[in-house]
Amino acid sequence: MAKPVKIMETVLRDGHQSLCATRMHLSDMLPQLAALDQVGYKALEAWGGATFDTCLRFLDEDPWERLDTLKSKLKTPIQMLLRGQNLLGYNHYSNDVVEKFVQKASQHGIGVFRIFDALNDVRNLKVAINAALNCPEKPEVQGCLVYTISPVHTNDTFVKLAKELQEMGCHSICIKDMSGLLKPYVAEDLVKKLKSELDIPVELHTHCTSGFGHATYLKAVEAGVDIIDCALAPFSSDTSQPCTETMIRMLEGTEHDTGIDVQQLTPISKHFLEVKKRLIKEFNLKGYFDINPNVLDFQIPGGMLSNLANQLKEAGMEDKYQDLLDEMPRVRKDIGYPPLVTPSSQIVGTMATFNVMSGERYKMVPNEFKDLARGKFGRTPVPVDHDFLTKTLHIAEEDIIEDCSVEDAKAETFDQFKAELIGKGFLNPTDEDVLSYALFPQVAEEFFKKHYQSITAYRR
Amino acid sequence: MAKPVKIMETVLRDGHQSLCATRMHLSDMLPQLAALDQVGYKALEAWGGATFDTCLRFLDEDPWERLDTLKSKLKTPIQMLLRGQNLLGYNHYSNDVVEKFVQKASQHGIGVFRIFDALNDVRNLKVAINAALNCPEKPEVQGCLVYTISPVHTNDTFVKLAKELQEMGCHSICIKDMSGLLKPYVAEDLVKKLKSELDIPVELHTHCTSGFGHATYLKAVEAGVDIIDCALAPFSSDTSQPCTETMIRMLEGTEHDTGIDVQQLTPISKHFLEVKKRLIKEFNLKGYFDINPNVLDFQIPGGMLSNLANQLKEAGMEDKYQDLLDEMPRVRKDIGYPPLVTPSSQIVGTMATFNVMSGERYKMVPNEFKDLARGKFGRTPVPVDHDFLTKTLHIAEEDIIEDCSVEDAKAETFDQFKAELIGKGFLNPTDEDVLSYALFPQVAEEFFKKHYQSITAYRR
Repeated sequence: MAKPVKIMETVLRDGHQSLCATRMHLSDMLPQLAALDQVGYKALEAWGGATFDTCLRFLDEDPWERLDTLKSKLKTPIQMLLRGQNLLGYNHYSNDVVEKFVQKASQHGIGVFRIFDALNDVRNLKVAINAALNCPEKPEVQGCLVYTISPVHTNDTFVKLAKELQEMGCHSICIKDMSGLLKPYVAEDLVKKLKSELDIPVELHTHCTSGFGHATYLKAVEAGVDIIDCALAPFSSDTSQPCTETMIRMLEGTEHDTGIDVQQLTPISKHFLEVKKRLIKEFNLKGYFDINPNVLDFQIPGGMLSNLANQLKEAGMEDKYQDLLDEMPRVRKDIGYPPLVTPSSQIVGTMATFNVMSGERYKMVPNEFKDLARGKFGRTPVPVDHDFLTKTLHIAEEDIIEDCSVEDAKAETFDQFKAELIGKGFLNPTDEDVLSYALFPQVAEEFFKKHYQSITAYRR
Repeated sequence: MAKPVKIMETVLRDGHQSLCATRMHLSDMLPQLAALDQVGYKALEAWGGATFDTCLRFLDEDPWERLDTLKSKLKTPIQMLLRGQNLLGYNHYSNDVVEKFVQKASQHGIGVFRIFDALNDVRNLKVAINAALNCPEKPEVQGCLVYTISPVHTNDTFVKLAKELQEMGCHSICIKDMSGLLKPYVAEDLVKKLKSELDIPVELHTHCTSGFGHATYLKAVEAGVDIIDCALAPFSSDTSQPCTETMIRMLEGTEHDTGIDVQQLTPISKHFLEVKKRLIKEFNLKGYFDINPNVLDFQIPGGMLSNLANQLKEAGMEDKYQDLLDEMPRVRKDIGYPPLVTPSSQIVGTMATFNVMSGERYKMVPNEFKDLARGKFGRTPVPVDHDFLTKTLHIAEEDIIEDCSVEDAKAETFDQFKAELIGKGFLNPTDEDVLSYALFPQVAEEFFKKHYQSITAYRR
């Protein structure tokens, strides 16, 4: 019985985020949008993740305008990646900021909201999921299982989480394996269990960092996964997704045949190969990464690893690289085995770097690490040891947080951000401008300074 | 029931041939030979293929001495890749040269002879296989199915060939998929058929060029393949083999668990990552290749593709690249669908380049192409059209060859090569020197000029 697998294409977001530091310009995408729209993809991931930040910071593009342009050229649903209560920034935002952001994103054309929390704490997903469910444009709302390996994570814990997400009203579930840790036979087992316990579609998102990618998709497909996330050849593999063309060819003629004509992808991939070459040159990027099966131990997402190595190098401590890789799993254990993904990956990575560079563990502790430890970002998979909290990190009893949503309620509101922006002389900001500012205050302000026109808000 | 899969490691041969133009020095290998020997590999591929040529041509190393050194440090069987009647050169050699070469290679320590013919013509394998079977050192003799896709190649044709090879006395069979064309489910079917029809072990060799590699191994393992060819992480993937560490991790805990401790590979891979970086710098190499699923159509092995592109560039015809890729399958069809591997890949690739560059098909025809067409290299999978032979290529009736072994008998003998070498002033050459000279006359002569010491043959 034919059961075609659907493909979600990541060339416009995760592909270039994973291989080219999210530096793709809107102008690099435009020439192929019509062709991409014809392929028959389930969705095109094209917004969210790190795109918002890099648009403002490096590309001199307004992310909202980019979304408008994409929407005007595409009938295929546009997907975004949203970090729940973190949105696209690095803090927890107040509920009204989260709600407003989701509403505006939907209005501007997001057709699929993929929502995750770094700790898999559903309390951090609730506001964003509800906001998306209530959007009048009726976008698809997808809840994520942030995949990781630890002594307390099993396929059964993920199935339990998936059922909660289904109960919360999610239309589909995504297994989000951002570091490529999911082995083929583990994927097969997980997908089978999810398909038997859920009534909604299951999507699988992986990266090829450890080399499992294509094989993991194959076993997941055999086990009944509904959608796989792939990138066109030039932006696939290494630390990115498995290759779209490869997966189509693999499944040709089987009961899971995607039905996509692989030939029509050749000119599109040809275009993006040129784009990749140009981006590598323009931004002095590496563009490729060696396959590294040891990611299973240190679990640092690929892009972050090169950053950490660079920090050590700048500090003249290049020889401490292996120590850093060894220290990561120890810090992660101390802090209750969080999955490592933005922002937990940065927080754990920075702490491990401090430990290695100072030569003494937890001598200098960044505030973000204390916040993660004391529960400000939500519940860690294993409760953090009380002595570690109070004696090692010197956190006062009263600063330990049981319910992070109480803290969220204290965060700056939309109106406060708006007033702040007006106070800086941007007199009539749009809601979109306020949201950009809420997420990246300094970066957005710099951007506005260049583009804000007299009295009215920035609208080119 | 546990059925461990064995791994044949290619880091010392095909890994650096596929990613670094075969430029690894013996000195790059030495520091890790003891560690590699401890892993528990089925064999280490370390000789043959393009290593012989590059040793003499680029690395100023005597290939026989390299083999001696490797053998003195390794208990794990050393494997070589041998092109049947072509040995390691580009012509057909006379039977006595083939026999002498195999005997000497065995004497110097080859434990596994992997023998193939570009056309899968068993007549070209017979002499080499028999010579290897008769070596007193009793090496393993492995016959190859050179894998390709065409209207006349099916899994059944490969099974038929495998049975012939078993009857010829081969100890094992290798499916040699040099361009990464073998899709996972096709591999599964082929391995199942081979396992049910043969009594000897089946080994699978693939490349990741099209992205199938790891998934293809997974399905082949499920179907019962005995050995898979892998390269340590830094020299794996892209146009090379699937990654050793990845495959070990994938199969951990399954009935096909390799039993290899993946942790012991970390320092070895670390060493070879540094080697790779140095080779890329030293020889100004690219070091990586974009995944290219279109290889399924044009079928050119990865390393050759960049050469062809470079030839076009030097001729100022860079814009003809796509024309070349389109022309390859047409030329291959005209000449009876040979698998494309050394030397047929070079011959077909050069012909296609001539056609594209001259703008007229078969206006200029290299002699090697005529030789391939008229049967000098053996029987093509489909007989070449008679009109194409006589009218398009202007080959005379009497030059069409039915039995290529008759031609081989006319080739220069070992004694003739030896006399030639002595005539050039190298007065007392060893058999090994004569063989080097027989395979690469000019290159070997240059090498001897540097190292030959007065009256006696070159022995450092």
